[in-house]
Amino acid sequence: MVFKKIDLIGTSEESFEDAVDDAIERAETTLENVHWVEVDELGVEVGSVENREYQAEVEIAFELGE
Amino acid sequence: MVFKKIDLIGTSEESFEDAVDDAIERAETTLENVHWVEVDELGVEVGSVENREYQAEVEIAFELGE
Amino acid sequence: MVFKKIDLIGTSEESFEDAVDDAIERAETTLENVHWVEVDELGVEVGSVENREYQAEVEIAFELGE
Amino acid sequence: MVFKKIDLIGTSEESFEDAVDDAIERAETTLENVHWVEVDELGVEVGSVENREYQAEVEIAFELGE
Amino acid sequence: MVFKKIDLIGTSEESFEDAVDDAIERAETTLENVHWVEVDELGVEVGSVENREYQAEVEIAFELGE
Amino acid sequence: MVFKKIDLIGTSEESFEDAVDDAIERAETTLENVHWVEVDELGVEVGSVENREYQAEVEIAFELGE
Amino acid sequence: MVFKKIDLIGTSEESFEDAVDDAIERAETTLENVHWVEVDELGVEVGSVENREYQAEVEIAFELGE
Amino acid sequence: MVFKKIDLIGTSEESFEDAVDDAIERAETTLENVHWVEVDELGVEVGSVENREYQAEVEIAFELGE
Amino acid sequence: MVFKKIDLIGTSEESFEDAVDDAIERAETTLENVHWVEVDELGVEVGSVENREYQAEVEIAFELGE
Amino acid sequence: MVFKKIDLIGTSEESFEDAVDDAIERAETTLENVHWVEVDELGVEVGSVENREYQAEVEIAFELGE
Amino acid sequence: MVFKKIDLIGTSEESFEDAVDDAIERAETTLENVHWVEVDELGVEVGSVENREYQAEVEIAFELGE
Amino acid sequence: MVFKKIDLIGTSEESFEDAVDDAIERAETTLENVHWVEVDELGVEVGSVENREYQAEVEIAFELGE
Repeated sequence: MVFKKIDLIGTSEESFEDAVDDAIERAETTLENVHWVEVDELGVEVGSVENREYQAEVEIAFELGE
Repeated sequence: MVFKKIDLIGTSEESFEDAVDDAIERAETTLENVHWVEVDELGVEVGSVENREYQAEVEIAFELGE
Repeated sequence: MVFKKIDLIGTSEESFEDAVDDAIERAETTLENVHWVEVDELGVEVGSVENREYQAEVEIAFELGE
Repeated sequence: MVFKKIDLIGTSEESFEDAVDDAIERAETTLENVHWVEVDELGVEVGSVENREYQAEVEIAFELGE
Repeated sequence: MVFKKIDLIGTSEESFEDAVDDAIERAETTLENVHWVEVDELGVEVGSVENREYQAEVEIAFELGE
Repeated sequence: MVFKKIDLIGTSEESFEDAVDDAIERAETTLENVHWVEVDELGVEVGSVENREYQAEVEIAFELGE
Repeated sequence: MVFKKIDLIGTSEESFEDAVDDAIERAETTLENVHWVEVDELGVEVGSVENREYQAEVEIAFELGE
Repeated sequence: MVFKKIDLIGTSEESFEDAVDDAIERAETTLENVHWVEVDELGVEVGSVENREYQAEVEIAFELGE
Repeated sequence: MVFKKIDLIGTSEESFEDAVDDAIERAETTLENVHWVEVDELGVEVGSVENREYQAEVEIAFELGE
Repeated sequence: MVFKKIDLIGTSEESFEDAVDDAIERAETTLENVHWVEVDELGVEVGSVENREYQAEVEIAFELGE
Repeated sequence: MVFKKIDLIGTSEESFEDAVDDAIERAETTLENVHWVEVDELGVEVGSVENREYQAEVEIAFELGE
Repeated sequence: MVFKKIDLIGTSEESFEDAVDDAIERAETTLENVHWVEVDELGVEVGSVENREYQAEVEIAFELGE
């Protein structure tokens, strides 16, 4: 059994949880076996967006098929 | 005055705050003098649970009695 | 173009997002060009407050005028 | 010459070397030019498996074709 | 569900795996629900022992009962 | 031979050494086999105390009985 | 909006900037929306090359299409 | 003698050295006693600028007057 | 309630405590509400001074007025 | 009593333990009082060798004579 | 001008400053141009000594002759 | 095959690459088998020199003879 991890950054105007979920949902559009997620960094974009944008950089671990 | 720190991991289907609170409340069932809490890691369990489970690993600092 | 970063710690009885926002709003009372924010640490004060107080230590980056 | 690095987690019931090799071998089923491997974390899964499972999270560096 | 983590250092004259197992087995003499183990540091004691002694400092995570 | 490490924070109005010793002495009231101590963080409490209070967060390693 | 980050190592006989650019240009042969780049490590290969080879390990962040 | 450190991010289309110098020169428009500079992070902005923009986040240490 | 942190480096020919105190006292000449201090780095200057000079780089946290 | 630490990288086609031992044995050809060893990094060389080569970067601590 | 850094661990029954000085003095028996010292780790040996022994691991930087 | 790593700090009034090269060239006056170099820290000395002096702290890895 081998897992792979990829780094995604999700965004949300609501909360850090939504930003994390945003990344997970994007991952699950192409990956079937997401097992767990680690949060690497949290931030907020202010300057280039109308409302504050919560951001979560996450590592998403999924099982590789044989 | 001496403090001790222990490492707990709380879980919640709702939010990271609930996961942190979950750990604090478990600590307070046996400890009286919790002073502060530091968040070490945030994560999400996906593979082995029905709904996503937010997780917070925290260090809980409490005062040791004499 | 030069940016400066300052370290603030915001607090909230509600959530980590509110604690981060608290710090950003305080920064924006004196700074005009906040661009982005990085979360350095999350914690909870328990011992010296009536209700749990969520805390967020953040680095706030803003553009320096010429 | 450009290298790319990917993060894999290999597993083995025998040893950390086997867990590392497991990840390398999986990588080599799709990649031809693996150059070196860095071990990021070692762990053991106990709760959800019959026997202890040694795990190695590794960064695998391979050369990208032109 | 709340997990607790404790820090143990296991030792072995044979291998790092044995040193990790040594710590796990000691933990399991008093804890029933060990879930996973993270390796924090590996080392070798040379000066104060007859043969080289492999050492593994590990964090052992177990589930706390209600 | 298995060692366990616990995290304590000692305090002193005199010096960092005294703060470290404070933590060690508290540990030795309940533990017999303290072997070594690692200093993780040094700090000073100013706001909530009459005089400055030096603080030392330490990891205390002791041998577990069989 | 979701970003993905990948780890590349660019090389150059001239400078660290060229090594970084080398990685960016390789990324842009297959990716359209590179937003920013973080430098993780700098190094120099000496032993296996005729001239010194500057190396830059970078994280390249690009926007994922819907 | 007391030093203070501030965090600036300089930018340049030419090189990392120019980005560092950019931050130093901005600091010296208001500070007289800059002593030394530590580079914390290097990066490249690609998405929101016409040409690549090298960025250097630096800590600038200067002597405080009495 | 919002706190701000600044980075100072205090110096002393006597001890690290004195170097820390040196930084705190300098901070308190302009700041009223210093709450706590974290030690980031300790060092000794030897080459450019007559006697060894102990140095302490500290983060000083103070409460911002409304 | 003063200790010195040096950084060595040992290699082995068999195991990480052998790679660590390789470094210790090389150190002991010129040093008499090796006390302990800390493992800093583990890796595997694949590209430039016939068989996989396990590598261990270690810090070797020995006592300096008076 | 090129500097070299070496890692020493000094010990003292009195204080961390004495432990640092111990390492510096040992270095100066063979090196002429010590410029500065950085403290990497502080600890206390308890188990194998009669009195507590303060330890300081330091990096000592000195100028290399041409 | 055993490698050793030493820490040098090279300096240059021109660029970080020159500062790195400065350290490598000094190493090669006494060492024959330099294999690779890792950059640990970059900085700029301003206060004690006429022109800004770029500095690079590097780890230089070379093969030890049998």
